[in-house]
Amino acid sequence: MSRHVLLDHGSGGRASYRMIKDIFLRHLENPILSGLDDAACIEAWPGTVVSTDTFTVDPLFFPGGDIGSLAVHGTVNDVAMLGARPMYLTCGFVLEEGLPLEDLEAVVRSMGRAATEAGVRVISGDTKVVPRGAADKMFINTTGIGRLLLDRPLSGSSAKPGDAILVSGNLGDHGLAVMASRSGLSFETAVKSDSAPLNGLIELLLERVEHVHVLRDPTRGGLATTLNEISAQSGVEMLVREAELPVRPAVREGCSLLGLDPLYLANEGRLVCLVGSGQAAEALDVLRSHPLGTEARQIGEASAGEAGRVVLQTAIGGKRFLSMLEGEQLPRIC
Amino acid sequence: MSRHVLLDHGSGGRASYRMIKDIFLRHLENPILSGLDDAACIEAWPGTVVSTDTFTVDPLFFPGGDIGSLAVHGTVNDVAMLGARPMYLTCGFVLEEGLPLEDLEAVVRSMGRAATEAGVRVISGDTKVVPRGAADKMFINTTGIGRLLLDRPLSGSSAKPGDAILVSGNLGDHGLAVMASRSGLSFETAVKSDSAPLNGLIELLLERVEHVHVLRDPTRGGLATTLNEISAQSGVEMLVREAELPVRPAVREGCSLLGLDPLYLANEGRLVCLVGSGQAAEALDVLRSHPLGTEARQIGEASAGEAGRVVLQTAIGGKRFLSMLEGEQLPRIC
Repeated sequence: MSRHVLLDHGSGGRASYRMIKDIFLRHLENPILSGLDDAACIEAWPGTVVSTDTFTVDPLFFPGGDIGSLAVHGTVNDVAMLGARPMYLTCGFVLEEGLPLEDLEAVVRSMGRAATEAGVRVISGDTKVVPRGAADKMFINTTGIGRLLLDRPLSGSSAKPGDAILVSGNLGDHGLAVMASRSGLSFETAVKSDSAPLNGLIELLLERVEHVHVLRDPTRGGLATTLNEISAQSGVEMLVREAELPVRPAVREGCSLLGLDPLYLANEGRLVCLVGSGQAAEALDVLRSHPLGTEARQIGEASAGEAGRVVLQTAIGGKRFLSMLEGEQLPRIC
Repeated sequence: MSRHVLLDHGSGGRASYRMIKDIFLRHLENPILSGLDDAACIEAWPGTVVSTDTFTVDPLFFPGGDIGSLAVHGTVNDVAMLGARPMYLTCGFVLEEGLPLEDLEAVVRSMGRAATEAGVRVISGDTKVVPRGAADKMFINTTGIGRLLLDRPLSGSSAKPGDAILVSGNLGDHGLAVMASRSGLSFETAVKSDSAPLNGLIELLLERVEHVHVLRDPTRGGLATTLNEISAQSGVEMLVREAELPVRPAVREGCSLLGLDPLYLANEGRLVCLVGSGQAAEALDVLRSHPLGTEARQIGEASAGEAGRVVLQTAIGGKRFLSMLEGEQLPRIC
């Protein structure tokens, strides 16, 4: 383990995982935290779910969103992925001295709109200002509280052999939109962030489909990392067919220009869903009936095989392992 | 209003208050947030209290504590001040690339100890790493969830004319310890931060004293700012006797050396308490019976008078208004 914090420690990939285990779990150990899901249930309030996330995206404003809407969507989605209805948010701001108040107001206005759209209320907030140079413009932490819609929370550990693996839409839009906007590139077809609140889509899905086993949002580390996590947590192997992966042509082009892989790009308005094999068609119908799921696809299946192994069947028929993100591809993407 | 964020906007004083009203409340308005207490009650979970705070203290380690223990104490105390028992914390870290992992581990270890001591559990966490220069070493957000010990939460708006104003101990230790440590000064008598979890002291007080009207921790902006807030929220005038204010000689000396006023220095292990006049002696006894309240004092009284007016009766017999903090005295003090 390196003796300093590296960008890689924030990637959401293997180094992040090691740091969390070696430092955070070691000193803050308790059964709830050790579950390592994106949100936690608290036993003193049965049916209550909590999740926290800090947003450091650069630039603050990008095509399709900004740090304010992202900070609402990100936490709303983490709460919803447990099978819960997000209800309340707290927000904590770190502001750099010299930030235009106009930018702050635009971000807060956007948070307000995103919160209204997602049906959540901001109930507690805090603002810290640090001297110029001690932070880059603005960071926002949001913590979300929600109510379970199911008897038990969904977890990354509940995938079963035979499950169908679905995604709700095109991959990589958020990551590419932010990277392109940061590097000053513009593509012929402008790519917009997919940032969106998925709680409505999830409620619909849970209402209509009985055997939803896992829900996850493939944010930092992208689809590849999320599938690796589920595979390891659930002890199932996964097969993913490259030909089925929905990636917009503009995202493919942008990725090859910037040297990025869309399977490792963060998404902020997409979900990965594992459902019992008999329910794949039904789940796809439900997802596609919602405005945020029109491009939903089945991309593969889980099998007994080896825990933590995700196999990509390439478009030309080969097979390779799809590993967790190694190294920081994209700092400050969310 | 200035068109850029100034350090003053983070002071906890008048500029902070204006920014919160003009920007945050304007776009995130709802009855819970508008209460402007340090923690919020959530009506969907009766008896549940939530509070969020971000810690940016510089340096990370200071006499008597570090950013980790401070991040636990600060939020534990905010929850407790509503008359609640803090139970759970979430934590969100922003780490600068290059931070020694040793420092991170020392901070997390300290959080773990502080959480154990305060009787709370860390149930959800998040870590973001930003490139070198995009943040200064480490920021931590903590969000606390607790259970009310009373039928209704305590609020800054419940002070009544005639109430006795008590403080639980010496003022200014935290602020001076951090400032001295930052500036490399050391005083003959080293001053240590008072950072401590006040939930135990508060439970004792609420158990034994019936008419506790207001509890507040005088953090950013110090005692003077906290009294001004309570005075405005409750519509009472306050008289504070300078001769009764407990300030250690070493803090007085350090303040005159650094040009600081102890009444505006942050405290992280002290509370201000307003109790019905008949209960002042009893409340003082209870406070003094606890290790964190041995230096408790009555410092003044509330009266009908003018809302938002805090009068200081000076040691030499004069009177002056004690205003809210104007201008940022101390950035990154908590």
